[in-house]
Amino acid sequence: MSKIRAVVFDAYGTLFDVYSVTARAEQLFPGKGETLALLWRERQIDYSRLRSLAAPDGSRYKPFWDITIDALRYAAERLGLPLDEAAEAQLLKEYACLSAFPENLGALKRLRRANLPLGILSNGNPEMLDIAVKSAGMHGLFDHVLSVDPVRQYKTSPAAYALGPQAFNLSAGEILFVSSNCWDACGATWFGYTTFWINRAGHPAERLDVAPTGTGHDMNDLLAFASPLVTATGVAL
Amino acid sequence: MSKIRAVVFDAYGTLFDVYSVTARAEQLFPGKGETLALLWRERQIDYSRLRSLAAPDGSRYKPFWDITIDALRYAAERLGLPLDEAAEAQLLKEYACLSAFPENLGALKRLRRANLPLGILSNGNPEMLDIAVKSAGMHGLFDHVLSVDPVRQYKTSPAAYALGPQAFNLSAGEILFVSSNCWDACGATWFGYTTFWINRAGHPAERLDVAPTGTGHDMNDLLAFASPLVTATGVAL
Repeated sequence: MSKIRAVVFDAYGTLFDVYSVTARAEQLFPGKGETLALLWRERQIDYSRLRSLAAPDGSRYKPFWDITIDALRYAAERLGLPLDEAAEAQLLKEYACLSAFPENLGALKRLRRANLPLGILSNGNPEMLDIAVKSAGMHGLFDHVLSVDPVRQYKTSPAAYALGPQAFNLSAGEILFVSSNCWDACGATWFGYTTFWINRAGHPAERLDVAPTGTGHDMNDLLAFASPLVTATGVAL
Repeated sequence: MSKIRAVVFDAYGTLFDVYSVTARAEQLFPGKGETLALLWRERQIDYSRLRSLAAPDGSRYKPFWDITIDALRYAAERLGLPLDEAAEAQLLKEYACLSAFPENLGALKRLRRANLPLGILSNGNPEMLDIAVKSAGMHGLFDHVLSVDPVRQYKTSPAAYALGPQAFNLSAGEILFVSSNCWDACGATWFGYTTFWINRAGHPAERLDVAPTGTGHDMNDLLAFASPLVTATGVAL
């Protein structure tokens, strides 16, 4: 297994806890909040993949924030929920300003104290990532906040994953890519990263004939996994 | 709007009615059949897109039948359902041998009587398409049964949609592409086909900044839509 010289994180659901969106949806549409949040998320991901797969040249690309709005409107319409401007604005504000999972800030700071360069590699466009990083109290913790926006291809496109090695000037195997989406960890493994799947929900692994290098329940498990792989600095995690 | 010189159909859910799969799932796992069928279908599509998007060179391609098995096993595991060999075999047999939607055979025969060349363009691999066409009583109705298998890229990849114009030696706009999946009709519209979305479930259109050329509820609506566009033979639909 490669030694690790940097750690790169997926953003939504991995660093940022999207649960508050479901809670707000439930407040607005009692009894339908979870269904709305699930369908919203599903279409958000679907639209990203459909656009990238349909146009390897990026000509169908649309920024993730705009896709997020499209997906919310579809989900509400499909479920017959009266999404007026005020309700939409509340849900989008919730999505824009997420909190960090409770253990994440401490874990990120421990990684930084070990002098490990840190990054984000996200489908999110730069503007939404900037707001999210600040809202979650993570400003200044990352050497690179990478959006797929410049390459106009969403994950699991190789063009998207290539942004990590390019920014850090490392091979993919020297970078530990961390995601709470199993498909994202699998995609990064295909690309060549060393990977860790944070399986917070206890789901089975996706059946894609590839396994993340490591798996655990939260960011503390990530620290335990990463510790023996870190030699860049000699500073213990 | 272009004149139509051929009609090409998506297969699963468009020509072949997949409802019997849900019914069998419900029989095997009472109260969980619909959830299992939905998650199965969701992962089947997810896996096709993830593999194609991750590898424009086709190196992550896996035939659709194998993906269908992977997706079923994932869905059962995720829902905690005891899918033994016998249950899996029953569900797969149901999926392999589907029926046609009730009005489909009559509609296809009317299109053929107008001397319109007909085809299928499907994510399914050739072996599964062959069995499905025969099971549904559609043998001999199609000039081309096209699988994405040779190009190792699933829809909405342009390489997949390009198979239609190549086989029929027509421009995409001269071909009417028909799907009951809105995303598929949208993908084909992006590619340049004239398109028709059979919206059997009455769902809202996907928000992808593109609209199918026409929309209706079933294959009879398709005939009404196609009738004024057909001039190849002068024979009325």
